[in-house]
Amino acid sequence: MAGQRRIMLCGNIVWAHEEVKQLFDGLADVVLMDSPNRADFLAGLKPGGKYDNILGIYRHNTSADRIGVFDKEIIRALAETGTVKWIAHNGAGYDQIDVLECAAQGITVSNTPGAIDDATATTALYLIISTLRHFSRAERSLYAGTWKSPISSGKTHDLTTRTLGILGLGGIGLRLAHLVHAFPMRVVYYSRHKRTDLPEWCEYAESIEALCQQADVLSVHVPLREETVHLVGEREIRVMKRGSIIVNTARGKVIDEEAMIRALEDGHASPPFPLAAVGLDVYPNEPNVNPRLLAFPQNALLPHMGTENQDSQRQMEVRALTNLRDFLRDGQGKDVVPELRSRL
Amino acid sequence: MAGQRRIMLCGNIVWAHEEVKQLFDGLADVVLMDSPNRADFLAGLKPGGKYDNILGIYRHNTSADRIGVFDKEIIRALAETGTVKWIAHNGAGYDQIDVLECAAQGITVSNTPGAIDDATATTALYLIISTLRHFSRAERSLYAGTWKSPISSGKTHDLTTRTLGILGLGGIGLRLAHLVHAFPMRVVYYSRHKRTDLPEWCEYAESIEALCQQADVLSVHVPLREETVHLVGEREIRVMKRGSIIVNTARGKVIDEEAMIRALEDGHASPPFPLAAVGLDVYPNEPNVNPRLLAFPQNALLPHMGTENQDSQRQMEVRALTNLRDFLRDGQGKDVVPELRSRL
Repeated sequence: MAGQRRIMLCGNIVWAHEEVKQLFDGLADVVLMDSPNRADFLAGLKPGGKYDNILGIYRHNTSADRIGVFDKEIIRALAETGTVKWIAHNGAGYDQIDVLECAAQGITVSNTPGAIDDATATTALYLIISTLRHFSRAERSLYAGTWKSPISSGKTHDLTTRTLGILGLGGIGLRLAHLVHAFPMRVVYYSRHKRTDLPEWCEYAESIEALCQQADVLSVHVPLREETVHLVGEREIRVMKRGSIIVNTARGKVIDEEAMIRALEDGHASPPFPLAAVGLDVYPNEPNVNPRLLAFPQNALLPHMGTENQDSQRQMEVRALTNLRDFLRDGQGKDVVPELRSRL
Repeated sequence: MAGQRRIMLCGNIVWAHEEVKQLFDGLADVVLMDSPNRADFLAGLKPGGKYDNILGIYRHNTSADRIGVFDKEIIRALAETGTVKWIAHNGAGYDQIDVLECAAQGITVSNTPGAIDDATATTALYLIISTLRHFSRAERSLYAGTWKSPISSGKTHDLTTRTLGILGLGGIGLRLAHLVHAFPMRVVYYSRHKRTDLPEWCEYAESIEALCQQADVLSVHVPLREETVHLVGEREIRVMKRGSIIVNTARGKVIDEEAMIRALEDGHASPPFPLAAVGLDVYPNEPNVNPRLLAFPQNALLPHMGTENQDSQRQMEVRALTNLRDFLRDGQGKDVVPELRSRL
C-alpha cells in the first residue's frame, strides 16, 4: 500500500527529483503535475486518473500558468478525491489558494514564512536606496549614453536619519528594521497590535495615518487578504509628507495603484499629493505593469524579484517539502496558515 | 585692504552666494570663477586680472569641464600670483590636483574626508545587492517589457553569510563594513597596516591576494595615487573565486579595466577567469564608459553617483568652505591632505 501513497509536485522545483524521492522514501511516491491545462488536471484527479491516490501537494505559484490558481473549483476537486489532505505551498504569500474553501473541505494549507524574510527585506532595502538616491534613474541614464545629466543631486538623499515607516511588522518588516538601523534610519511601525518583543528604537505608530504622516519612506509588509486590499489608499497617501516615497515588496493590491499614480502625477506641483517616487517589486496584475508607472523616471521597478535567489528558493522549497513530509510521517506538519489553525 | 582680499569659488556650489558671503564676512570677498576655458582663467590670474588678489580657492571637480584639472600649469600660475595659499577641495578624492607641485610651490590643499563616507558606502551596498541579486538586470528587463524572463534565480544570491572583501579600510570601507554586518556578511579587509581599533568581526587579510582569494564580493576603497593605479590587476583578479563580483566606488584607474573585462568575458567558460559580474560607479575615463562593460547584462553601472545627494553635497561644501574660512581667520584650516602635512 505504501507504494501507492503519492504526493504531487505542482509547479517549479529546483531540487532534483531524486532528492525529493529520497526525502519521501518509505512515505510516498512522487508524481509530477504535468497537465498543460486545467481540464487535464481535473480529469487526472478523478478515480483511476493519473493523479489518483495523492495525499498531499507541494505547490508553487508557477503552476498557475497552466492550471490557474487554487480556487474553489480546484479545491473542491481535490476534496472529492478523498485523499488530498495537505497543500504545502512554497511561498510566504498564499493568496493564490482559497484557504477558506480549504478549511470548509478539511484540507490543511502550510506556507513558508521566515525563509524569505532576508531576501524580501533586502529587496525593500535596495528599493529604498534606489529611490532616495535616484540610482535606478542614474543607471538608465548611463545605459542611454547620457551619463548623469538628468540627475539633480538636490533631489536625492541619504538614508541616514530619515524615517522609515514599516506597515506590518512581521518577519520581513522586522528584518528590514534591523538592516536600516545600521545606518541608522529612524524606524516607526504600525501593526494591528503593538509588539512587546522589539528593540527600543522601533517606535509604534497608533494608526496607519500616524505612520504615513511621519514616514519619509513607507515600506509595505502586510499579506494580501480581503481586508488588506487597498489598505494604503488615497486617504493614507494624502497625509504623507511632501517628497516622500512608497516602497512595496508585499503584494500590489495592498496599495490603491490609481491613488498612488495620481499622487505621483500631482507630486511635483502641489500638496496634498506629495509623492516623490515609488519603489515597487509587486503589481496588482502581474506580470503586467501599469505603463503609467514607467513614465516617472525617478521610480525603481523590479519584476517581483523579492525571493528570486538561489538561497531563498532552496530554503523555501526545503521548508515546504519538509512540512509535507512531516504531515505524512507524523500526521502533522508545521507552518499551517492562520486561517487553518483553528482546525488543529 | 580687507575689502580687496578675495576667495574664488571654482566649480559647482549649491549654497546660495549670499550664504557663502556671510561665511566669509569680514574676511574676504567672494568671486566666482566664470572662465569658459583655461586661457581665460590663466589670464585672469595675472596682476590686474579679474582674479587678482585671491587668497584661497574653493574647488569642485566640475571646474575641470571648463579649465581642466589643477595640473602643474595651473598650480604654477596660482603660485605666481603670490597670494593664493590654500586650495579647499570639495571631495574626498583629490587626484585632479597635482598636490606634489602644490607642496613645491607652497600652496596647501585640503579635502573633505568623512563627509562622504556614508553616501559612498551606501552606493557600494547598492551595487553589492544589485550584482548579487541581478536587480539592475531585472529592472532593465521590466522596462524592456520582458518582466523577469532573462533572470535565472539559480545564479543569484543573498548577501547574508557571504564574504565581503574590503580593499582599503578607511572611513568609507569601515562604514560599509558596519552596513553589511547587519546582514551579516563576513567582513575581511586589507590595508597597508592592520588596524587595532576595529570590531572583532573585521578580519584582516595579510595581502591583497589573500583578500581576493576569500572574497565573494571585492569592494575597492583606496584613493587613486601613483602606487594604486591598477592595484587590482590580472594577478589579483585571477585568484578570485569562480562566480565572484568586483564593486568599485573609489576610482576607475585603481582597477585594470582590461583585465577585469577579460575576466568577465571568460568568466562563464572556465577558470582561471571567474568573474560573475561587476558593480561600478567609477571608470578610468569618465564620463566615457567602456561599451564592452554594457555588454554584460549582469553588471550594474552607475554614473559616478557616490556622493551625489543633497545631504552629502552640502556637508562636503560646508566642510570645504569651513577649511578655507579657518585658514583665512586663523592662518590654518583642517583636512590638509597627507602629501602636504609635512609642511605644517
